[in-house]
Amino acid sequence: MVNSIRGFAKENRIIRRNHFNTICYMDNSHHGFPGKNKIADVREIIASQVHRTPALTCASLNEITGSFLFFKCENFQKGGAFKFRGASHAVITLSREDAVRGVATHSSGNHAQALALAASMRGIKAHIVMPENAPKIKVAAVESYGGIIRFCRPTLPDRESTLLEVIEECGATEIHPYNDYRIIAGQASAAAELYEDTPLLDCLVVPVGGGGLLSGSILSTRYFSPGTKVFGAEPEQANDAWESFQKQKLIPVRNPNTIADGLRTSLGSLTFPIIMEGAEDILTVSEDAIIRAMQLIWERMKIVVEPSAATVLAAVIEHPLHFAGKNTGLILSGGNVDLYRLPWLDRTITNH
Amino acid sequence: MVNSIRGFAKENRIIRRNHFNTICYMDNSHHGFPGKNKIADVREIIASQVHRTPALTCASLNEITGSFLFFKCENFQKGGAFKFRGASHAVITLSREDAVRGVATHSSGNHAQALALAASMRGIKAHIVMPENAPKIKVAAVESYGGIIRFCRPTLPDRESTLLEVIEECGATEIHPYNDYRIIAGQASAAAELYEDTPLLDCLVVPVGGGGLLSGSILSTRYFSPGTKVFGAEPEQANDAWESFQKQKLIPVRNPNTIADGLRTSLGSLTFPIIMEGAEDILTVSEDAIIRAMQLIWERMKIVVEPSAATVLAAVIEHPLHFAGKNTGLILSGGNVDLYRLPWLDRTITNH
Repeated sequence: MVNSIRGFAKENRIIRRNHFNTICYMDNSHHGFPGKNKIADVREIIASQVHRTPALTCASLNEITGSFLFFKCENFQKGGAFKFRGASHAVITLSREDAVRGVATHSSGNHAQALALAASMRGIKAHIVMPENAPKIKVAAVESYGGIIRFCRPTLPDRESTLLEVIEECGATEIHPYNDYRIIAGQASAAAELYEDTPLLDCLVVPVGGGGLLSGSILSTRYFSPGTKVFGAEPEQANDAWESFQKQKLIPVRNPNTIADGLRTSLGSLTFPIIMEGAEDILTVSEDAIIRAMQLIWERMKIVVEPSAATVLAAVIEHPLHFAGKNTGLILSGGNVDLYRLPWLDRTITNH
Repeated sequence: MVNSIRGFAKENRIIRRNHFNTICYMDNSHHGFPGKNKIADVREIIASQVHRTPALTCASLNEITGSFLFFKCENFQKGGAFKFRGASHAVITLSREDAVRGVATHSSGNHAQALALAASMRGIKAHIVMPENAPKIKVAAVESYGGIIRFCRPTLPDRESTLLEVIEECGATEIHPYNDYRIIAGQASAAAELYEDTPLLDCLVVPVGGGGLLSGSILSTRYFSPGTKVFGAEPEQANDAWESFQKQKLIPVRNPNTIADGLRTSLGSLTFPIIMEGAEDILTVSEDAIIRAMQLIWERMKIVVEPSAATVLAAVIEHPLHFAGKNTGLILSGGNVDLYRLPWLDRTITNH
């Protein structure tokens, strides 16, 4: 790789050597820190598989927020979420030898579906470790994409040990949901497309869970729209990215208790330094704001988004000073929702 | 007008004089039967006001139906439904003298919202007669677009007499929701756009209530894609178009009892002859099929459509022989749904 994270740091004139020195030699870093050319290459590599999702605008949400909003609709992506970008990239670029042994991950969320789909498109196996109490709708979704499910007890140690078992048995390659430069480079393609399809954006707001989408978006911003400020949007009730950003050290999430099920994970060793360096700020949002923003998007834009995606509009509504009068991009990360469990139906209904 | 409906009939070589002789002199017919040039003109006239909505595809719905589906997303139209096309045309083309006295209609549905919005964009008044038991959400929507609501008792005679009162008081111009060539020509623009944006379509499926969208779509098909077969999609429980089409005479709907609230009206004297002549068939669909199709669209396409819009996919699913292996356009007529009352939540849940 021509571009190293150290070089990136220098060019950006904010050097936090303690972070960068550590991450360069950690797991998955051998896939190489994604530079500008790498991301351009990745876009070409995955172009025939991923949807180039539209950027939508909505006059009434502009009015409500006082900003000019451009929504990148990854809810329309294959598999219903941005996750397919990274998974597709990781699977396509596997060597033939590795590919025949399949891929594996532990996930009960969108990454599981995305990896199963990407694997089926290459005609290889995807082994998905899921907790035995995973919602049936998610199990069915993974199965519908041809994923081979291995159930385990619903604890992180159990998930990890079961995944190791699978890998030992099959020789499958683990594809981590975010802490992997192949994944980060794939997720970067969403923001890169958005910058091509919209007027110059002053700000970009991206949901942050493990940080794959946010760190990828930061890289694309640096390479393709360096004047744009990038904000992470995070639930108050899973605010590890906010805390890590404030304290400038990686702090894992504790007891995340948010409806935004895609954002309950902790930042990774590869995503954190990129976010630390490139994010303008992490904006936290309340559960009420997430639900209200989700409902607004459904009502006004007539599109289905999941709670995690709605955090970006919630952030614009709860932190208006950053966005007033600005061209603001928002990445709607996904649309995988159980249509039998809509959050506004569970609340005391006051506005109806 | 250069084009008359008689000329249209002759050119089409299916002459049903009894229909055409009657409708030429009926209400609103003085606005002129919309010929090819007229529809091209209307598109230019309304272009700055209406959204050019996208045509979306969905691989999993193609797989489920065995057809190649192209969805024209009028749920993304201003006001949340195709109705804004016709309303916008009718309001823009009012003379200045008529415009200052405003427009009026009786409706509790999408036409009311569309007319209120179109009027507000011209800076004139829209008087909307609504039954006093209209859902609050619909009243609020009309008010949000600046409509002036006059409530009446919930019977058709009351609605009509109240509308007459309003017109006598204000001198407002009545804009009928469908039985008006200005409206039909406006609605025709949706199919005309779809034909420009898709490969050659073998079939086009359009919901039918009063017939404004279906008759407009038939005209655009004749002028811009004459090889395409046009089907109406109608709830079994409001099957007046099907019955009228079978018996070749206009039969009003009796006790419509369908979840597709936009399709409970009867065909009009202007829409029926066009449908009689230009539709390939009217396909009726069950309530269960409508709800299942609506849910499929939300789940697989991640977009919000109302039950009336879902009838088109229900028709493809319930009448597959017409569409197998064919390029099929479907007009998703609107997306105005009460998010607190989703039909699949009211049913016995068997698939979950």
